[in-house]
Amino acid sequence: MKIAFIGLGVMGYPMAGHLKRAGHDVTVFNRTRARADKWTAEYGGVAAATPALAAKGADAVFCCVGRDADLAAVTLGEDGAFGAMAAGALFVDHTTASANMARELDAQAGQRGFDFVDAPVSGGEAGAVNGKLTIMCGGSEAAYARAETIFSCYARQARRLGPAGAGQLTKMVNQICIAGVLQGLGEGLSFARAAGLDIEAVVDVISKGAAQSWQMENRHKTMAAGHYNHGFAVEWMRKDLGICLDEARRNGASLPATALIDQFYAEVEHMGGKRWDTSSLFARQEFTRKGTS
Amino acid sequence: MKIAFIGLGVMGYPMAGHLKRAGHDVTVFNRTRARADKWTAEYGGVAAATPALAAKGADAVFCCVGRDADLAAVTLGEDGAFGAMAAGALFVDHTTASANMARELDAQAGQRGFDFVDAPVSGGEAGAVNGKLTIMCGGSEAAYARAETIFSCYARQARRLGPAGAGQLTKMVNQICIAGVLQGLGEGLSFARAAGLDIEAVVDVISKGAAQSWQMENRHKTMAAGHYNHGFAVEWMRKDLGICLDEARRNGASLPATALIDQFYAEVEHMGGKRWDTSSLFARQEFTRKGTS
Repeated sequence: MKIAFIGLGVMGYPMAGHLKRAGHDVTVFNRTRARADKWTAEYGGVAAATPALAAKGADAVFCCVGRDADLAAVTLGEDGAFGAMAAGALFVDHTTASANMARELDAQAGQRGFDFVDAPVSGGEAGAVNGKLTIMCGGSEAAYARAETIFSCYARQARRLGPAGAGQLTKMVNQICIAGVLQGLGEGLSFARAAGLDIEAVVDVISKGAAQSWQMENRHKTMAAGHYNHGFAVEWMRKDLGICLDEARRNGASLPATALIDQFYAEVEHMGGKRWDTSSLFARQEFTRKGTS
Repeated sequence: MKIAFIGLGVMGYPMAGHLKRAGHDVTVFNRTRARADKWTAEYGGVAAATPALAAKGADAVFCCVGRDADLAAVTLGEDGAFGAMAAGALFVDHTTASANMARELDAQAGQRGFDFVDAPVSGGEAGAVNGKLTIMCGGSEAAYARAETIFSCYARQARRLGPAGAGQLTKMVNQICIAGVLQGLGEGLSFARAAGLDIEAVVDVISKGAAQSWQMENRHKTMAAGHYNHGFAVEWMRKDLGICLDEARRNGASLPATALIDQFYAEVEHMGGKRWDTSSLFARQEFTRKGTS
């Protein structure tokens, strides 16, 4: 299949690689050209000068960029992919973006006669590299069915949750749950430190019951060591929580703890932690207690 | 071994039963006598009229009551167990109480020449009935070693975390982590509802990754159904969070989300949810969004 992949960031780079290795004819576009050249040197394929040139003649166009504005630029902007895509093609967006953006792109795709699927992922850089991502999708059943056959190149699981935007909304639920888990864990482990307890021993005894979480199991050691190098960074989490809070203004959901935790992440940024991973809420807890993290 | 068990509540009743079934000579005390009589009718053994009478001549005295004041009454109060216990005996407290209370009881036990272990549990009523509790302990190594041999009657795991009070402090870490997980989950699932998503489908797709938690796996169905009958009630969670917040005033830990969630539980109580289980934070979220849960 002739595929275009737009956005070779931490996630897109290996995802596009999986598509190429699966035998697809892949053309890539990346804003910073050097990274596209690195990709073609590694995987073969072709690097295009614009999203439109990458998308021209493609059966399916995949995209994984940073923010709504980036997504708008590479789709609807000058030299964007949408203007070059043929009727009958498929556009799959792996960006974590707003549901409104997904609905807008779906409407625009519909007018142009091609399919759209919003398909944000979870699983992080490791999931992208190992081809074990989870993909949360919105779009028509027909559009999803087309995308699903290709997802097997890098997904452990994929699911359609509803019409366009439903993938983004599901990703928001995911981020809201993570925020609560991490703040609770950050407070719990900081309290443990303040109480003179050994974090490793405490987690060992509480991690089999009602307090258990993936974050507790996978992050308590690095949190205790003050290491926040697990990839998904605070500045990206803030972007996602901002999307959640914006969407909640529309749909009427109340997100008091999420809003508070978003502010805590702002404080982590002020502590120099823009690039620390999301478990750095613990660093803020420790800073609050000791005046140093 | 000659054992006394004080407090035959939801937890203590089956725990004392396990001790009796393991072949120990068990004397029980319960504030409401009828429940002690029910216990002896079911298990045999003897019901005593006061904690002191139950504790007299016992090698080990176990206790599982409600609050610090109840614990003070059955130990140090008139007809309390401490006045009747022999030097060389062992007192094990399964109450979730303050760490200060544990330290005070440990000091009093030391003056009287017997051992003390604070040993709050997790695992709920099911864990007590099935003998699969987790026990978080504080006390001297020698005192813990004595208690540990008896815990096997109803524990899946037991661990000493430090000196007297360390069991209570570890239980607090457990409750703080649970509070964060549940509020995040409550906001996430309520957001999903507001967004028109199917909760079951959303949880299916996000529950294998970074948002996963025991609470998500074990409570999302009942939360979605508005059923809050899982036992451990909001009024007890408030007691525990109050202990956490009091202790944090002493040790300097910062618990902003925990303090907020404690207030949310107060609101759940005002909604008539004093006896609902802790996952009823979702009911509050739904009430906030819709004016009805």
